[in-house]
Amino acid sequence: MTDIAMIEAAARRAAGHIRHTPLLSSPFLDEIAGRRVFVKAECLQHTGSFKARGGWAAVSALPADRRAAGVIAFSSGNHAQGVARAARLHDVPAVIVMPADAPKMKIDNTRALGAEVVLYDRETENREAIGAALAADRGLTLIKPYDEPQVIAGQGTCGLEIAEQAAGEGIATADVLVCCGGGGLTSGIALALAARAPGLRARPCEPEGFDDTARSLAAGRIERNAAAAGSICDAIVTPAPGELTFPIMQRLCGPGLVVTEDEVLRAMAAAFARLKIVVEPGGAVALAAALFHPEAIAGDTVICVATGGNVDPATYVRALAGA
Amino acid sequence: MTDIAMIEAAARRAAGHIRHTPLLSSPFLDEIAGRRVFVKAECLQHTGSFKARGGWAAVSALPADRRAAGVIAFSSGNHAQGVARAARLHDVPAVIVMPADAPKMKIDNTRALGAEVVLYDRETENREAIGAALAADRGLTLIKPYDEPQVIAGQGTCGLEIAEQAAGEGIATADVLVCCGGGGLTSGIALALAARAPGLRARPCEPEGFDDTARSLAAGRIERNAAAAGSICDAIVTPAPGELTFPIMQRLCGPGLVVTEDEVLRAMAAAFARLKIVVEPGGAVALAAALFHPEAIAGDTVICVATGGNVDPATYVRALAGA
Repeated sequence: MTDIAMIEAAARRAAGHIRHTPLLSSPFLDEIAGRRVFVKAECLQHTGSFKARGGWAAVSALPADRRAAGVIAFSSGNHAQGVARAARLHDVPAVIVMPADAPKMKIDNTRALGAEVVLYDRETENREAIGAALAADRGLTLIKPYDEPQVIAGQGTCGLEIAEQAAGEGIATADVLVCCGGGGLTSGIALALAARAPGLRARPCEPEGFDDTARSLAAGRIERNAAAAGSICDAIVTPAPGELTFPIMQRLCGPGLVVTEDEVLRAMAAAFARLKIVVEPGGAVALAAALFHPEAIAGDTVICVATGGNVDPATYVRALAGA
Repeated sequence: MTDIAMIEAAARRAAGHIRHTPLLSSPFLDEIAGRRVFVKAECLQHTGSFKARGGWAAVSALPADRRAAGVIAFSSGNHAQGVARAARLHDVPAVIVMPADAPKMKIDNTRALGAEVVLYDRETENREAIGAALAADRGLTLIKPYDEPQVIAGQGTCGLEIAEQAAGEGIATADVLVCCGGGGLTSGIALALAARAPGLRARPCEPEGFDDTARSLAAGRIERNAAAAGSICDAIVTPAPGELTFPIMQRLCGPGLVVTEDEVLRAMAAAFARLKIVVEPGGAVALAAALFHPEAIAGDTVICVATGGNVDPATYVRALAGA
């Protein structure tokens, strides 16, 4: 099980390979939110999302005898790129199973990072089954996107940085809003904060219609989404929180926050205008919650994680048009 | 005259108020350029450009008796915001003289930062004359955008960070490409590098038709641009290099590089796709040179400064359309 020692070990293995991303702010965002807003810019991470952390942690933890056969991952795109980069830099072959409707940029990038890409239909096929079959067939090690202790530890390194940066800003208590799919980042950050900055509390943020984690936390048991696709927030559409991540979130996280697609697009435009960072829809959910749901947050300061920036130009233009 | 001691003093006064911006990279950019490309992301600086550095240095160096009357600056927008922010945080009144055709976002932001904005016509009026008259009338201290020792020292703090970050990456020799208007940033960086990383050489980068610095360096004397406006690179359109900045550049810089507007737009799109940073046209000139003029650069590594990100959505959409 992931704990703070595993997160700190992942951070040591990542040194020099994973960026310490900046904590950004703007008085214009503070004004919208009615409190101080800090944005952890994980879109500036290698491969354009925090997933480079978990990919690095998992591949770097592989024993030598598993590296030669290679790894496999299933992903809508960001985990794909994170694993592909880590595999290439460790000289490990990688197969990535991706939904055929993933943003073209993510598919292209994953191939450019040297991985073999296998596409599937998100509505009719089950990626876990495809991944498991390929793994068995070729002797590959499956690196799950979130329900995997080393991946949670890798994502938790983002929480270590938040703890340190918050201390540097003099922030003792605040909600830390995290864009949440299966809960790997949210649970990893929650573990890191509990150990290193107990006044900071992680809270998952999700788009309307895909709020499985918020509902699961409220219900006290894992709830599933009705739809499997159909959100612009492709990066964080998962059927349900993970078997490993949910208990961690249940123990350590505050209630989930839910935002509309329109709020997501407006948050992307605000990040463009005020922070000069490119944020993808799934990566803007936490900022949308910070800016447009101030009534659901307590305290004079909020921290949110902009989890990724891998967005097609057409979607980005749509966000700017509404700005 | 600005020297390394003045730059280091400016860095000490800026501690906690000016961001250390990250040095970003992407294997995809390396592939385009045919060498390693590092991008100093000054668009992530407070106010969205490096100008926050010079503004802070100048205002923080003012003696107490000059602060009460206030400061005045003339600027197409980025220096305006840099001075306005520094003035507000030092509780100093600020008047900013801006061209009426500056991007609306820059004018709006300057007002929102608490400054009084005076607009002028870039084709028919002289901003220096307007600034001088207002300064005399109200007893304001004029903070020139580049021909001002403290401003050059403030911009030079960016060079101190580049020297340190390059050492961290193991880069001993490289050209450092800098988007160049009047030469404040270029000369400040050149001074810092000469003292702290003598294997790094600053080179000014300009858009076609506004290559006064490249021509001046080649001719060995200050040359002026034929046109005073008409570039999408509004942030770096100045009539000629400065009286103070030119001798520094002449002594320390390599030859200038000149890029087309189309290359600038493509560099903005590359920064969007590969680095997830928003760069304005004038801030993308150095990256354009790195990516699309590899023949004009020597060595296996190039560093370029993305100087600002204050771009209107319409211009940004135009850049993405060509991507």
